[in-house]
Amino acid sequence: MSELFDPVFGTDAVVAATDDRAWLRALCAVEMALARASARVGLIDPDDASVVVHAAAELADSDPAELGRRAAAGGNPVIPIVVLLRERVGPDAAAAVHLGATSQDILDTALVLISRRALAVIHGDVTACADAAAELAKTHRGTPMAGRTLLQRAEPTTFGALAAVWGAGLDRAAGRLDAVDVSLPAQLGGAAGTLAAWHPDGFDMAAAFADELDLPEPDGVWHSERTRIAELASALGIVGVAVRKVAADIVLLAQTELGEVREDAPGGSSSMPHKQNPIAAVTARAGTDRVPALVATLLGGTHELQRPAGAWHAEWPTLMALLRAAGGAAARLRTSLTGLRVDTEAMARNLEPLDAKATGHAEDLVDRYLAGRRR
Amino acid sequence: MSELFDPVFGTDAVVAATDDRAWLRALCAVEMALARASARVGLIDPDDASVVVHAAAELADSDPAELGRRAAAGGNPVIPIVVLLRERVGPDAAAAVHLGATSQDILDTALVLISRRALAVIHGDVTACADAAAELAKTHRGTPMAGRTLLQRAEPTTFGALAAVWGAGLDRAAGRLDAVDVSLPAQLGGAAGTLAAWHPDGFDMAAAFADELDLPEPDGVWHSERTRIAELASALGIVGVAVRKVAADIVLLAQTELGEVREDAPGGSSSMPHKQNPIAAVTARAGTDRVPALVATLLGGTHELQRPAGAWHAEWPTLMALLRAAGGAAARLRTSLTGLRVDTEAMARNLEPLDAKATGHAEDLVDRYLAGRRR
Amino acid sequence: MSELFDPVFGTDAVVAATDDRAWLRALCAVEMALARASARVGLIDPDDASVVVHAAAELADSDPAELGRRAAAGGNPVIPIVVLLRERVGPDAAAAVHLGATSQDILDTALVLISRRALAVIHGDVTACADAAAELAKTHRGTPMAGRTLLQRAEPTTFGALAAVWGAGLDRAAGRLDAVDVSLPAQLGGAAGTLAAWHPDGFDMAAAFADELDLPEPDGVWHSERTRIAELASALGIVGVAVRKVAADIVLLAQTELGEVREDAPGGSSSMPHKQNPIAAVTARAGTDRVPALVATLLGGTHELQRPAGAWHAEWPTLMALLRAAGGAAARLRTSLTGLRVDTEAMARNLEPLDAKATGHAEDLVDRYLAGRRR
Amino acid sequence: MSELFDPVFGTDAVVAATDDRAWLRALCAVEMALARASARVGLIDPDDASVVVHAAAELADSDPAELGRRAAAGGNPVIPIVVLLRERVGPDAAAAVHLGATSQDILDTALVLISRRALAVIHGDVTACADAAAELAKTHRGTPMAGRTLLQRAEPTTFGALAAVWGAGLDRAAGRLDAVDVSLPAQLGGAAGTLAAWHPDGFDMAAAFADELDLPEPDGVWHSERTRIAELASALGIVGVAVRKVAADIVLLAQTELGEVREDAPGGSSSMPHKQNPIAAVTARAGTDRVPALVATLLGGTHELQRPAGAWHAEWPTLMALLRAAGGAAARLRTSLTGLRVDTEAMARNLEPLDAKATGHAEDLVDRYLAGRRR
Repeated sequence: MSELFDPVFGTDAVVAATDDRAWLRALCAVEMALARASARVGLIDPDDASVVVHAAAELADSDPAELGRRAAAGGNPVIPIVVLLRERVGPDAAAAVHLGATSQDILDTALVLISRRALAVIHGDVTACADAAAELAKTHRGTPMAGRTLLQRAEPTTFGALAAVWGAGLDRAAGRLDAVDVSLPAQLGGAAGTLAAWHPDGFDMAAAFADELDLPEPDGVWHSERTRIAELASALGIVGVAVRKVAADIVLLAQTELGEVREDAPGGSSSMPHKQNPIAAVTARAGTDRVPALVATLLGGTHELQRPAGAWHAEWPTLMALLRAAGGAAARLRTSLTGLRVDTEAMARNLEPLDAKATGHAEDLVDRYLAGRRR
Repeated sequence: MSELFDPVFGTDAVVAATDDRAWLRALCAVEMALARASARVGLIDPDDASVVVHAAAELADSDPAELGRRAAAGGNPVIPIVVLLRERVGPDAAAAVHLGATSQDILDTALVLISRRALAVIHGDVTACADAAAELAKTHRGTPMAGRTLLQRAEPTTFGALAAVWGAGLDRAAGRLDAVDVSLPAQLGGAAGTLAAWHPDGFDMAAAFADELDLPEPDGVWHSERTRIAELASALGIVGVAVRKVAADIVLLAQTELGEVREDAPGGSSSMPHKQNPIAAVTARAGTDRVPALVATLLGGTHELQRPAGAWHAEWPTLMALLRAAGGAAARLRTSLTGLRVDTEAMARNLEPLDAKATGHAEDLVDRYLAGRRR
Repeated sequence: MSELFDPVFGTDAVVAATDDRAWLRALCAVEMALARASARVGLIDPDDASVVVHAAAELADSDPAELGRRAAAGGNPVIPIVVLLRERVGPDAAAAVHLGATSQDILDTALVLISRRALAVIHGDVTACADAAAELAKTHRGTPMAGRTLLQRAEPTTFGALAAVWGAGLDRAAGRLDAVDVSLPAQLGGAAGTLAAWHPDGFDMAAAFADELDLPEPDGVWHSERTRIAELASALGIVGVAVRKVAADIVLLAQTELGEVREDAPGGSSSMPHKQNPIAAVTARAGTDRVPALVATLLGGTHELQRPAGAWHAEWPTLMALLRAAGGAAARLRTSLTGLRVDTEAMARNLEPLDAKATGHAEDLVDRYLAGRRR
Repeated sequence: MSELFDPVFGTDAVVAATDDRAWLRALCAVEMALARASARVGLIDPDDASVVVHAAAELADSDPAELGRRAAAGGNPVIPIVVLLRERVGPDAAAAVHLGATSQDILDTALVLISRRALAVIHGDVTACADAAAELAKTHRGTPMAGRTLLQRAEPTTFGALAAVWGAGLDRAAGRLDAVDVSLPAQLGGAAGTLAAWHPDGFDMAAAFADELDLPEPDGVWHSERTRIAELASALGIVGVAVRKVAADIVLLAQTELGEVREDAPGGSSSMPHKQNPIAAVTARAGTDRVPALVATLLGGTHELQRPAGAWHAEWPTLMALLRAAGGAAARLRTSLTGLRVDTEAMARNLEPLDAKATGHAEDLVDRYLAGRRR
């Protein structure tokens, strides 16, 4: 998180969903849900649960830096949260705090809450991009332009056909986000991932816990089975692919010598007032350039036995960085696409040297794409 | 491809589906399908199509090295294939060769054919791994062992519960492969991705072409819209995650000081006859270590405008390496898992210092996992 | 940057050298140096330079968030800094602000200042780790332990010999940091990297500018020639390799069943009071797990023509994340290594089943390593 | 290795230095050197050494596929090589085979031999590229062209100044290769990396062994201390950075709308005879796109304790792929650069709209760069 650089990369909205304050609230919300679920299942007294919920709600607004300092010793912020909650609720309700759970239950579930909120923001930007591309495809269904392969002028196409390709990729990326969203459940396993502390009520606890948070119930304990995280990472990787394609095309078409598109609020320069940099597309590209490696880190962890010795910890900053990079890129592309000015004359001029053919099929491709969207 | 090293990494079967010979056959099969489809749609004479098909069938068995040498000048092997086919069919049928298509149509479609064959091999190994894990979960549903978190002894669990975690990841990986398989269509766009050369029969051509190859019909031209390739890469990345988890656990449980599992054909050493290396798991791990970065490369390409200037070319060796690394790892894990010897006494011995609790919930988790599989 | 998570990953000290406030100060310091150098070379009036320096000093303590918001439009924070400085110095001195420079001159030079400060912190931690390893090698030169290959017990060695291997890697990593530090020069090129605005005093300006900042003078303009950044990234990658090796070994040797080392302040658990997690090593590992992919991002940028359209922007967050991940890992390992408790009895016990041979050569290796360090 | 695709990526020469046959010869050469060194140090009879050398020389020309099949069981090809050598030399000399060594000694040393040969090839291509860039800088020292930032026309520069930037990066990359080359020593450690089997002659053996292969003597055992491999990988990563910069610029300047450079043997198209693809630069770029992730894999291994359980194995295919990708890219760029046609009229035409300034400083930069090269 950087107040100086985040706005450049469009990460503001995702940062708000993933920053220290969001984390602290999510962690406390999960402890609250655990207490409420414990009471529902009859493992703790409802009054004790209320005391815990109240204390957690207060803690949710405390100073993240103070908690961070206390977190180093044990290696995660849940440990000091539990200590503080037990202190605050007093000896009678202390046993009702964090009952049966392990740090990873709380942190993984908070990670899911935070990821889902961030995904909602990202999904909004990706679909807005897709809609803008579809609009361009419709408007420029028959606008002739030069097709370029290996960056050499090739044969005629229409700008609408290119925008349809943009839109198809963005729609597929949005579809992957939809699929991932439903697959991220709560986590509840206890110390060794056996639900032992709640036996024989483990499954009831897990169901109540997930229900309190409005999350899918897990079909097993996934402390060290991280294909879900891999799917989340992959979906963000696919957002990166779809966004980079469009952003790179805009940067290329906006080159001075082509001049076929430009952004409605191009960036200036500290040294050259005449510059018209397609800065939203440029920074969208920059965001997508960071995505693949972050995905690779999340695909590369070794999650040993019941809970891993490092790979889990590495997920937190990596996933936050990935949500911000992919989300920021989508937000910047949204700015670029929704304000894109198309210079149809420049397109015609650049097309001229080609033996212009009918572009009927380019238009058919647009129609098929638009019809596919309506389904 | 390396005859010296591939067997170590279990890549033999995938290599056979992805090597030069497989590529040459796939490329020629696609040219055949194009000719047949052109005849079906009425764009060329059926006799000319037969001549092309015959010539392509012959070329499919020629020397890949010779074609490789001729491929350098144009940057892909389709260009010399087309030249050779036109030479061989003679001037009358020459126009029936590669009609309307661009190199990328042929190569992408061949890439899809090859990927689907390789995926079938990989799917077989992943599901065999999943079945072996399920069998272990069933057999050892109630076999007590020490749960270990951060590699420190934590609380009791059962080996069945761990195997169920393994199986759940492998099942999810197999599920991703299933989903990807159906999403890889034929590619047909022509020079600038507009289907212009076949107008007004472009969609009919694309449908006939896909049908000839028993591939899904594309819903658009994806020359530079590579989310499909990203999804394929991601699915292989998830195979890597699922396989690495199991392989790493086997390596850890096989440590001399734990001795809880061993492979039935452990590897020896060139210097120490007493060594019992869990070599199948070790080399499976090695394979999965290569996967994330290869996925990142495929997620990182910039596919400019109608067809890209480099990112497409970079896909070929990267995707082949990825199929082989992920597939080989699954094959090696299959060997490890299907011959895994479990030392229940060692498990009991290592568990001893813990205050043994009932492991009833570990067993419930196994039951739920097995029931979920049967659905 | 995260106050909640950074302490867990030991990144506090590096964060202080790389956070928004450090950036804002560095950017303003570079504008000051530019004004002073311009006056030295005689391009601006010394009084105007003083006015600029004073204004920049004030701006250095302003709110980064406000600047961040203004930075989005142009794509980097230098643009609003220049606007604000010109406003603040008034019309007479406005021309003395940012004279001849481009945003990238300022930002790259600030990046160098910040990187060098962060490298100093990281170097301190890596050499402290190396010294601790050397101390362990000396103390345990003859302490017998089991050598383990592929995690199987192999033949005897001494703990000193293992610590010497640790130390050798850490020393090499420190050496790479030394080499990189001297290779990072100031950046001064102007709008198109030709020094045109200062002609014919361009080289004098670059020399004076670098001198003002106590930086090496550049031997050319490196706006889009980023091998220096690649070398910086690689050196941090090598820190990651050296740190990960040691951290992973500590985690393995600390396993309950081996018990050969433990940290002096092991981490607890929110659910299991008996746990003794080697948490400093675990979080060091987690930090190093993030390093390779961040290096890859920095090696992967396409820096087009005179200044790139995205790859430069992507460097900022990536390099900051890399400095923090690598530096934090070194800091955590320092904690782990300097407090490492060695259980020589456990080492002897685990060694027992082996046909113990003389470990004379292991001791010779320690001696050679220690002698090499003294040179 | 692919006979069909390697020529496209320019990897032919590196492949010849790194293929199965090269590996088999290198592995056998190392066993020969070990026998000779053992005789020199007096550990085996010189006649037995001769028998081993003879047998190894014969084995060097055998079928790699057969050895590959036998290698799977133990996880590396050295194990069957030792078995075969012992069979072939007969019972009397069998003890003289592989005396005291472990598989990793042989394989790591062969890896060094192979890497150094491949590096020589790559170095040749990188310096040829650098020389070609220097030649262009000299010739076009004063050829005016438009400088472009963020792909927008910015201010004038000269083509020589751009070529000087290209050359500076290539020179730095060549310098990194030089530095790495001298840092790759022989490997000799024995079973647990203690040189125990040769005690008290271990250091003499290591020196004699390295001397036989004309390799630097190791200053320690680096079985699991892989900073050397990381440095090798990084140097290749930096080659990728330098090559990608130039290749990407050529692709951009060759765009139809700019037309400022073209290759002397541009690639055609299977569908468009008029295409003039800068195919050498395009495929050079494709090669460099694969580099960063391969570097990341080599920076990411966990090399546990005395010898690792997977990370070592993963190095072999990854390093071979990296040498080929980086080396092939350099070879393709050499082709592109040495035949580059510069259209000075197009450069002048594209520059026209700019308020042309003196480009004196661009020329000074060329002079400084050329002077720096001569030193």
